[in-house]
Order: sequence, then C-alpha cells, then structure tokens
Amino acid sequence: MSNNIIVQKFGGSSMGDEEKIKNVARRISSTYKQGKKVVVVVSAMGKTTDNLVKLAYNINPTPSKREMDMLLSTGEQISISLLAMALHKLNIDAISLTGLQVGINTDSAHTKAKILDIKTNILRKYLNKGKVVIVAGFQGVDKNMNITTLGRGGSDTTAMALAAALKADLCEIYTDVDGVYTSDPRVITDAVKLDYITYDEMLEMASLGAKVMHSRAVEIAKRFNVKFEVKSSFKKTKGTIVYKEFKNMENLVVTGVTTNKNEAKITITDLPDKPGIAAKIFKLLSDNNINVNMIVQSSSPNKTNDISFTIDASDLTDAKKIIDKNLKSIGGKNVYYDKNIGTVSIVGIGMRSHPGIAKTMFETLSKNKINIQMISTSEIKISCVIERTKVDTAAKKLHKAFQLHNINKKTRG
Amino acid sequence: MSNNIIVQKFGGSSMGDEEKIKNVARRISSTYKQGKKVVVVVSAMGKTTDNLVKLAYNINPTPSKREMDMLLSTGEQISISLLAMALHKLNIDAISLTGLQVGINTDSAHTKAKILDIKTNILRKYLNKGKVVIVAGFQGVDKNMNITTLGRGGSDTTAMALAAALKADLCEIYTDVDGVYTSDPRVITDAVKLDYITYDEMLEMASLGAKVMHSRAVEIAKRFNVKFEVKSSFKKTKGTIVYKEFKNMENLVVTGVTTNKNEAKITITDLPDKPGIAAKIFKLLSDNNINVNMIVQSSSPNKTNDISFTIDASDLTDAKKIIDKNLKSIGGKNVYYDKNIGTVSIVGIGMRSHPGIAKTMFETLSKNKINIQMISTSEIKISCVIERTKVDTAAKKLHKAFQLHNINKKTRG
Repeated sequence: MSNNIIVQKFGGSSMGDEEKIKNVARRISSTYKQGKKVVVVVSAMGKTTDNLVKLAYNINPTPSKREMDMLLSTGEQISISLLAMALHKLNIDAISLTGLQVGINTDSAHTKAKILDIKTNILRKYLNKGKVVIVAGFQGVDKNMNITTLGRGGSDTTAMALAAALKADLCEIYTDVDGVYTSDPRVITDAVKLDYITYDEMLEMASLGAKVMHSRAVEIAKRFNVKFEVKSSFKKTKGTIVYKEFKNMENLVVTGVTTNKNEAKITITDLPDKPGIAAKIFKLLSDNNINVNMIVQSSSPNKTNDISFTIDASDLTDAKKIIDKNLKSIGGKNVYYDKNIGTVSIVGIGMRSHPGIAKTMFETLSKNKINIQMISTSEIKISCVIERTKVDTAAKKLHKAFQLHNINKKTRG
Repeated sequence: MSNNIIVQKFGGSSMGDEEKIKNVARRISSTYKQGKKVVVVVSAMGKTTDNLVKLAYNINPTPSKREMDMLLSTGEQISISLLAMALHKLNIDAISLTGLQVGINTDSAHTKAKILDIKTNILRKYLNKGKVVIVAGFQGVDKNMNITTLGRGGSDTTAMALAAALKADLCEIYTDVDGVYTSDPRVITDAVKLDYITYDEMLEMASLGAKVMHSRAVEIAKRFNVKFEVKSSFKKTKGTIVYKEFKNMENLVVTGVTTNKNEAKITITDLPDKPGIAAKIFKLLSDNNINVNMIVQSSSPNKTNDISFTIDASDLTDAKKIIDKNLKSIGGKNVYYDKNIGTVSIVGIGMRSHPGIAKTMFETLSKNKINIQMISTSEIKISCVIERTKVDTAAKKLHKAFQLHNINKKTRG
C-alpha cells in the first residue's frame, strides 16, 4: 500500500556549492510538484567535513569522539538549512531538522553509532502540513541527548532508516554515478547500467569492490524491505532500482562482473591437520586489524594442510611481520607472499538455480589462457584469484560470455 | 553566599584560530585549577558567522529566519567542541553543550529570541562531576524544539543569563579590550581603566557610544544582580568589575566621558504648538527604522515651537527624504540639516547627589570657546551637542576638569 512518501538522499558531492544546492532544490521541487510527500536527507557540503577534521587535529591529535561528533554534525546542519533556503526560493514550503530534532535515536558509540529507533511523529506532522522535510544525514542522538554520528555510509544509512520507519514507497539515493553497472564502465566499455538488482547482488557487488554504496545501508534496506534507486544527481536519467526480487528473475543468471586489483595472496604450507590452526592464524590477523577477504584450505592425505588467503595489498607489510614472527608457533613450514594477484568475480542471484555457471566461467578463463590460483564461491557469486595483469581481460571476456551488455533486454521489471 | 561557580565568556576574536583557542583553554585551566566550578560560554570563531551569512544570501537573498538560526548556530557549536578538545589536551575534563542541550529556553522570535528560562540540572550534574562545562553562546531553543538565536550581544547575554540562573559568584567577560575606560584611550591619552563601575553607568556609557558591551547583557546583569568583570583575553591584567554599587561611592562624581562623532542634527522650526506634533514626526522616522538619539524642544510665547533632534549620520539621507516630503503635513515652516555636529557626554552615578556638575561641564566648554547647541540630561549623565571638530578637545578638557585620570585612587573598592 502506497502512502505517497518518498525519501531522497543527496551526498556531499551533490551539495558541493551554492549552485549545486540550487540544483538539488530543483530536483526536489519537481518530485514535490508531482504530489509526493518528500523527505530529504543530505550530507555535509563537499569539503566541510575534511576541513573540520583538520581543525580538530590541529588542536588535539587524539580528539574525544563525543566532541568529534559535536563538531562534525555541524556539517550536515549547514547543508539542511541552506537547502531549505534554496527550496523557499522556489516557493516550496520546507523545514530542516537535525537528527536530534527528528528523534533519530542511537546507541552511544560515538563516531560509529547504531540507530536504535526513529520517531516519526514530528516528520509526519510536517509532511501532513505539506512541507518538504529536510533531515541532516549521518547523525543522531543518544539517550542522554549527546549528539552522535553514524560513521561510514552514514547519510545513506539515515535515508534507508527513515524510509523504513516511514514505510516510504521509494528511497532515492542521488550520487555522482548514474546507477549500478554490470561492470566498471571505465574498464569494460560495453558495461551497461542495470535497471534492477537485488539486495543480495548489490551486497556482493559492494563487498567485491563496486564503490556505489556502503553495504551497511544496503543491509538496512534489505532488512526492512526498502525499495531504493541509485541515480545521478546531475543527469535526468533513470537509475538502478534495488529490491528483494523482480519478475522474470529466472531468466537472469549473472548480473555483474567485479574486479579487485588491490589484493595480495599469502600461502602457508604444511600446517598440521588439527583443529584450531586456521582460527589461530586469523585471530592473529584480526587482532591487528587486518581483514581477510578470501580463504581456501586444502588438506592432503598425509595429514598436513596448505592454507591460502587474500588480504588488502596495503596490509601486506604488517601481515608479513606478524606471520613471519609466528610461523613456528602456528606450526607451518613455509610461507609465500604474492603481490601480483587480483580477483575477478561474477555475481547473480540466478546462479542458485542454474548449474553450469561455474563451468562457463572456468572455461572462459581457460580459453583465454588465464590460470586460476584460488576459487571461492557463495550462493550468488563465484570469485577467482588470478594474475593481476590479466584481471581486466578476464572481466571483459566474462562480461561478453554472460552477455551482460544485453541484460536489461533479457528480463526484469 | 558563594557557591564557587564562575562563568567565563570568550568572544569571537578570542576564538579566532587554533592558537587562540588553545590560549583560551589555558585561561580556563588556570581558573579551574584554583578549585572553581567553571562554566564557559563561547561565540563563533572570528569570521565563521560572516561566511555562513554570505553562503545563505548567495542561495536566497531573503532567507527564512528559522533557517538562519539553524545555520548560524553551527558557528558556536564548532567553537564549543574545539574548545573542549583543547581542554582535554591540557588534561582538563570538559564537555560541550549546545543551547538546546543545556535547555536555554527562548521565545520563538527567530534571530532575536528572548530567553524565557534556563534549566540548570544538566549544568549542575556535569559541574558536580568536576567537569568544565562549555556552552554555545547566542543560541537557545523554543518550545517546539526549533533552534533560536538571541541576536545582538547574544553570547554576552547567554553568559549573564547562565550566571544568573546558577547564582554564580562572578561572570567574566573576556574581550579584546582590557576593561572599561574613563574615556576612549585612543583619543584621551590619560584615560584610565576603571576598577569598578555600576550597571547604570555602564548602560549609559554603552548607549552613548562606548563599544565594550551590548546594553542588553548589562540589563540582564542588572536585573539579576550578576557581578561581572570585563577583561582582556590576551593580557593577564585585572579588568573592570561591574556591579550595582560599591563602597565609598559618594566620593565619586563623574565616571567617564564619552563622545559620538557619527551623528547629524535636524531642526524643524515654527511648528504649531499643539499636541501630537512631536509624536507624528518621530512615528514617521521610526516607521522607517530611523533611531532618534536626543530630542530638544523649545516653545515660544507666540505659540510656535522649534524642535531639534539627532540621528545617526548614516540615516541622514533617508531622514531628509521623509521630512522634506512631510514637512507641510507636519505643519513646520523650515527644516535645517547639520552634519557637522557631535556629542560629548559625562556619566556618573554620583551626579545624583552632587549639584554643580552641570555648571562645571558648561564652564569647561565655555572656557574653551566651545558653543553648546543642544543639552540633554538624565539622572546620571549630561550630553551636549557641539561642533564636530571640537568633540575630541571637549572630551580632553572634561576628562581633566573632572580629574578622571585619578579616579581609581579617589575611591571605590
């Protein structure tokens, strides 16, 4: 059931200067004039947050997190008031509200707070008066009235949470790309913008390196069934709709090809085949804030194991130090580090019911003389670690093999 | 009875940049280490407010007042968080609070709100935990949770109101001058900083052109008996204490000499001697936002009146237009405009009980061949309109005649 509410979120680059803010106001105005009830979420203007952070560190290199939140939340507060003024200039009745004023209640984990609940009575009051309500993204308030911020992906998270609380028809995420693509269009020239994608595919794409949105916001959308659209702030084109499922989905097998060329591979050989070895390795790494991306373990009949895993290339120096120091206590014999690797992945919810996708992927790589070093699969993605210099070629060939340039024609909607 | 609470207010120039903020933190730290409970009120950093105003006008030349308050209140919020960080760097436990968080409740007159009441429970909670509490000046919140600002003299007003609500021992107003002087030290080289001055004298000095503080804050101090001290942010000297009365006040006659060289005089002659004429003239001016400073009316036996008054020189062009247009309907015969005038005033609470002060003033001017064009008196001040080029000389001679260079020795304290 539609309640005619739409949430629109504009990021920092969309709010870069006065002219861009006026442009955002025009976009909102055109939605409002279609008779929608509009809630807008905005980020801080372009460089505001960076400048405030610099000020803080000049004063105290280890600033209190509570005071950082007090400081940084002003960035969005500036944006909402300016946007309200821009809407007034277009004769649109609009009102700005901080996270505290709305009642975006969070826990007290300053700089990375989690939303506990959102009050909708104030929002509804103003919407029912015909006002556009502009809400400061990225911020909330804890139970002691301290201002908090939500950390990474903050404004997207605010938008999704508001859309969920208001049961909005749609949440539009305006950004500097015009949607979600089958692959990186700077590399794959015939990559196409997807009309539709599911939450799970979007999450896999995000975790595999597609930079459109932080997965946290997508997870909230998924949990609360918020239909959202990723679209351009500047062009007036349709974006990509993200939702739990679509019609004719069975025709669809693979949705996207993603790549990651910022990884390194570590292999430890001849580990004793007993419980707790893997746990020991990955505890050491996680204690040192090193994230592991992909893990492959193979055991051999002679009761020793090899284990290979990938990490971000930027963590390699640290990881090497830790592993070299602990290799004996782990029980490994040799360790190999490889910086010349990358990952190519295919993502698609249709994989679940279509056998043979893996075969097509491996054949395509083999036909192009690309050797696979590691394979990792989930229900809706297959990733292969290969030589880094061959990652782009692999992506192009896979994009073609799965006919992704034709994807929107095939189905969906 | 002392409760050991002190309120310290630092203005925008004291908070101009990172180094100045660190300096403010050191001043607070030294008070705190004397065992005081310290509440600090700060303004926005130097040019922050001006820059925000410019942004707003680029977007909407007639911005909504509610949204201006939302926008401008961020300036103080930035200041409080940075100052808290600077105090943390000195190992002082400090917490920042916005006007809304403290509970500085105001009416809804955006951009010039009046404080209705201040909640002290949150302030006391943090003070009792040994924290320095840093409050954003200039801002409050109305009953619907809208952010308001207090308009001119805003942060001083916040400081005085907090001092009143907390019954603080003292409110220190740190500024870029080191106290209240007997006269403008740039003109009168032997002007001295006053150790003490009463609210009423301070109010007269403010309204007569001394730029130390906005009279609104002084009025609050007077109403609630807040003892305050005007002192330098940069020098470690004693300032001027302002209070309702002091010991040995009877020895004191004149406290200060003030001047105003930014006025113009208007004289309308031969007005009919009937009620309502003056009201008509001054209504016309006030409808056009022109403030009248001094008014002198003389009636003659033949039933016509002359009326002379002074206005700010910057309003003269507008005033001329209005009066020329309405001279006939007012019933006046001729009007004269004089831009070459200024005012010299003496202020002192002792005048009430000391006859002969006026005589000394007039004789001093006459001895120096300075012609008096208008005279206006109140209980504690006498003002004379004279030729503008003679204003500084007049001030020097009066300063000497009343021996103001010796004032602190004479009495007080």
